[in-house]
Amino acid sequence: MKGKLLYEGKAKRVYQADGQPGKLVLAYKNDVTAFNGEKKDMLPGKADLNNAISSHIFHELNDRGIRTHFIEKVSATEQLVHASEIIPLEVVVRNIAAGSIAKRLGIQAGTPLTPSIIELFYKNDDLNDPLINDDHALFLSDVTQPELNDIKTQALEINRQLIKLFTDVGIELVDFKLEFGRLSDGSVVLSDEISPDTCRLWDIQTRENLDKDVFRNGTGNLLEVYEKLMTRLEEAR
Amino acid sequence: MKGKLLYEGKAKRVYQADGQPGKLVLAYKNDVTAFNGEKKDMLPGKADLNNAISSHIFHELNDRGIRTHFIEKVSATEQLVHASEIIPLEVVVRNIAAGSIAKRLGIQAGTPLTPSIIELFYKNDDLNDPLINDDHALFLSDVTQPELNDIKTQALEINRQLIKLFTDVGIELVDFKLEFGRLSDGSVVLSDEISPDTCRLWDIQTRENLDKDVFRNGTGNLLEVYEKLMTRLEEAR
Repeated sequence: MKGKLLYEGKAKRVYQADGQPGKLVLAYKNDVTAFNGEKKDMLPGKADLNNAISSHIFHELNDRGIRTHFIEKVSATEQLVHASEIIPLEVVVRNIAAGSIAKRLGIQAGTPLTPSIIELFYKNDDLNDPLINDDHALFLSDVTQPELNDIKTQALEINRQLIKLFTDVGIELVDFKLEFGRLSDGSVVLSDEISPDTCRLWDIQTRENLDKDVFRNGTGNLLEVYEKLMTRLEEAR
Repeated sequence: MKGKLLYEGKAKRVYQADGQPGKLVLAYKNDVTAFNGEKKDMLPGKADLNNAISSHIFHELNDRGIRTHFIEKVSATEQLVHASEIIPLEVVVRNIAAGSIAKRLGIQAGTPLTPSIIELFYKNDDLNDPLINDDHALFLSDVTQPELNDIKTQALEINRQLIKLFTDVGIELVDFKLEFGRLSDGSVVLSDEISPDTCRLWDIQTRENLDKDVFRNGTGNLLEVYEKLMTRLEEAR
């Protein structure tokens, strides 16, 4: 199924889909990294969990009318997606203050952010993915202002849909990171992954982390936590 | 002329104007600071120069239809201004990459930024005046989105007028910082100062700094440089 390796990132490899022009295979890795790669580990089984959770979420979003690159899960660790030209922005949506924003802006962690705050970060490891504004994004990349507006509108709609999806299984969506790509027709769609690697998720009752913060902070077993999350999402089906 | 001291900042003191409700006296200090106060000095004569240059520029902006807090220069080191409620944002307009943006975003210093880039920083010494976006500004202060839009429109118009003013005397306007305040009628107007403390100014021919970078970088005599700038601005009259 997989053709040529196009790109290897920290958490995934991207291959051409053999004999299917315009489609790619995303192959999840067992690697886990934090703090821009400063902390890392290899956890057999993580690839399966990330693939299962992200496939589940993208499938739900597709069903709810969000346009995404996702086509289908094709193996335990792989999914088939539409090829897209990645826009080099990390789009973070925050519903509750946690992580970098709390420290950076002096906001008490746990403070509700109403309305939700959208942040753009420039995807550049050498610069440590700096926070940027729209003017910076227009200068640094070939994204256009209408595309940025579209990305923010989509991010807020994705936020509404994800809040429903997680609330249904007793989980609070604290914040999450999205990436967008341009399809061959020029339209901008949600791409990359949505998983506990890219979201902060808190159990509504116990406030326990169901996300990569257990690895970042060394407060729990990542595989057990991701497994618990997957089970809860599947039970809601 | 001066009444009660209301506020003392790094570069100015702000007094009530005696017997003139709704008006303030800004008294410039001889202090010079850089790197959020880490580097500092006291240069007798600096207050006069900053007051003269900022008064000159605000006078010109008023004449060119920009609404500002500035009324008039009332002594060597003081000016009379309309009282305004300061919006806790530093609004930076950049025409050429220099200083923090070059390092932060990996842009070669000296690169023209077309169109000009506007940045917002949250005025908070404890947090080191962090870069923020519109969503942050709306959360952290009582500024509204229409006010933010108005501030950016005004900042770009001020940029156009300042470019004309400086180009006429052979100076390139690299970047500058503005602050805005709300008058008692609710309108948002340019306040604070515009001086070589708050601008990067390069001689068009020689590229020499005519601004506080000579102090930041220890590359020249601040008083001589500010004096030279004042002379050039006055010759243009």
